[in-house]
Amino acid sequence: MPESIPENSVGLVKPQTAHFAQPLALDCGRTLAAYDLIYETYGKLNADSSNALLICHALSGDHHAAGYHSMLDRKPGWWENYIGPGKPIDTNQFFVVSLNNLGGCKGSTGPTSLDPKTGKAYGPDFPIITVRDWVESQVLLGERLGIKQWAAVIGGSLGGMQSLQWSIQYPDKLRHCVVIAAASKLSAQNIAFNEVARQAMLRDPEFHEGRYYEHNTVPKRGLMLARMLGHITYLSDDAMRAKFGRELREGKLNFGFDAAEFQVESYLRYQGESFVDRFDANTYLLMTKALDYFDPASDYEDDLAKALAPAKAQFLVCSFTSDWRFAPARSREIVHALQQNRLAVSYAEIEAHQGHDAFLIKIPHYIAAFSAYMQRIAKEINA
Amino acid sequence: MPESIPENSVGLVKPQTAHFAQPLALDCGRTLAAYDLIYETYGKLNADSSNALLICHALSGDHHAAGYHSMLDRKPGWWENYIGPGKPIDTNQFFVVSLNNLGGCKGSTGPTSLDPKTGKAYGPDFPIITVRDWVESQVLLGERLGIKQWAAVIGGSLGGMQSLQWSIQYPDKLRHCVVIAAASKLSAQNIAFNEVARQAMLRDPEFHEGRYYEHNTVPKRGLMLARMLGHITYLSDDAMRAKFGRELREGKLNFGFDAAEFQVESYLRYQGESFVDRFDANTYLLMTKALDYFDPASDYEDDLAKALAPAKAQFLVCSFTSDWRFAPARSREIVHALQQNRLAVSYAEIEAHQGHDAFLIKIPHYIAAFSAYMQRIAKEINA
Repeated sequence: MPESIPENSVGLVKPQTAHFAQPLALDCGRTLAAYDLIYETYGKLNADSSNALLICHALSGDHHAAGYHSMLDRKPGWWENYIGPGKPIDTNQFFVVSLNNLGGCKGSTGPTSLDPKTGKAYGPDFPIITVRDWVESQVLLGERLGIKQWAAVIGGSLGGMQSLQWSIQYPDKLRHCVVIAAASKLSAQNIAFNEVARQAMLRDPEFHEGRYYEHNTVPKRGLMLARMLGHITYLSDDAMRAKFGRELREGKLNFGFDAAEFQVESYLRYQGESFVDRFDANTYLLMTKALDYFDPASDYEDDLAKALAPAKAQFLVCSFTSDWRFAPARSREIVHALQQNRLAVSYAEIEAHQGHDAFLIKIPHYIAAFSAYMQRIAKEINA
Repeated sequence: MPESIPENSVGLVKPQTAHFAQPLALDCGRTLAAYDLIYETYGKLNADSSNALLICHALSGDHHAAGYHSMLDRKPGWWENYIGPGKPIDTNQFFVVSLNNLGGCKGSTGPTSLDPKTGKAYGPDFPIITVRDWVESQVLLGERLGIKQWAAVIGGSLGGMQSLQWSIQYPDKLRHCVVIAAASKLSAQNIAFNEVARQAMLRDPEFHEGRYYEHNTVPKRGLMLARMLGHITYLSDDAMRAKFGRELREGKLNFGFDAAEFQVESYLRYQGESFVDRFDANTYLLMTKALDYFDPASDYEDDLAKALAPAKAQFLVCSFTSDWRFAPARSREIVHALQQNRLAVSYAEIEAHQGHDAFLIKIPHYIAAFSAYMQRIAKEINA
């Protein structure tokens, strides 16, 4: 918990909930009759509502991107390093909106919410949500907040896929699009990792075909394994080497299976076990499907340039050299497709050893590139 | 099953078992009172026993490296591409010995064997075996077969770790050492993958603390997940892209979790499920520990050159450009340490897109380099 809130934090924040009673038609063919979206805002909306930024979260992220919910919080929001007064996403200049996506488990309607039809949690009956569905729901949230056009839609990883999809789906509703550590589609290897994570959860005897809430249990083994595996793909080989090497916890081998022997084992077990207390397996499953399904070029004979033809925004694309989940080459594919459409695109390939997680971490070159771009947007607004 | 045995196969082979009644002191401090080693031989031992090659297997390998056990076999031994008449490991010229390692589940003493003390399967009571222990037991097998010095000890992946350890531990007992797609120690990332695989098995409710045999069950979920994960690390990102891309099994998304949607999911599920029928979880656990623990430089202030100082063999080291499990840089570390000891070392870095699995696959440049080296050994023998 912070002794005092740091000066460059947005400070104490309070989530708000917007209820939507208008049915939402989904990609899967089903309709969500009504739903809630939980969100936070930081900074002030200006008079002509031209300074609004939308933040889209990644797989296990949520609406709590910056600040603290209480003085008892051990940690601030997930993008505290980048959102706040004087930070790249400068809350002195921008009005920032961050939501928990549909299907989430942190307050927006998702598998843990009550299904009005049955009076029980949706569980596995919650429809599979796509990135396109998220954009639809985010548009409605923007309208609710009086935002006709976002100064920028911004996201990292799965969040970057959402910002990219915004530029295609609602080209007039954003002026800038920031796509960080993302890809225009998953590779077979990416899907393979998701599939192992899914099977770990689906085959956990405590999964009960997704109705584990009714059994007063959670598929904790499966969710733990999924998270451990995720963490391997978030860190680079180099970052793991730097962080853990082959350090032994007790300085010697113990020739057994019970205790974690190497530091990296201990780290992964902790990450996996603690995740179980704060995340829902059905939501995790949905998020992996949203990742697998995202592929805007698939309707255009795999031609990403064609898929991006409707886009009008200006783009910032960032990647990190040691990110092997979504390697720089994947970002360059996006940059190339944008250039083919003669769109304005800035591309920053950041030298960083931290792997995919780099997008969350303070890295001077990244801060510089991101800040410079955001200041340009601020200048346009004030011009 | 083969309609007929191909001409360049060693043909029908029959495994043999050697019983050892002399206790074997292990690295872990425990002793194995007696044990069996199952092995196969291909080719003929020459008059002065100078043409013997030892093949060391990788994580899920065994003694059946070449040929067929019966005309009903669907597949030949695991290194059929490289062992046989006229192949790189030419059975017209060499006497080839391939064994199942201690701790294995294919006929050598391991967790599925009966513990004479209890009359039940060893299960989790089987001691943790190290690469050094394997070399000790392989030396004894060699003596049993009348082989005082191997023309070469050869292995890929974990097998390459064994051949490397041979060169340190018994420098006078081999003239050549072939280390393929290996590393002198696991990285933190390698250990991390093993740890996820282990946790999948250890936390499977059907694991019963390793005594699942007594419960007439097997931890099939855990073993399946471990194997799925393994397969991701055996293939390169490129190989997966080439093999599966984002191909959908039914040509369209089905918005559900039950069926495998993408081809890569279907492949992994099949690999995982079929592995359960042919491998033992306790053995898999032991193999991952042998991998994690292998680190000959750890007793020499992490100086691999010092660890390799006793070596006298000549070396062939091979790596594959797309192998991200044990990347070429890991092989180059070995080459560099050998060179520091002024040992004769040939290094072949093979351009290949198949990833770690490349060491099992027919690749013209690899065949050429491997054959050339083995022919040099044959010439020495016949000189």
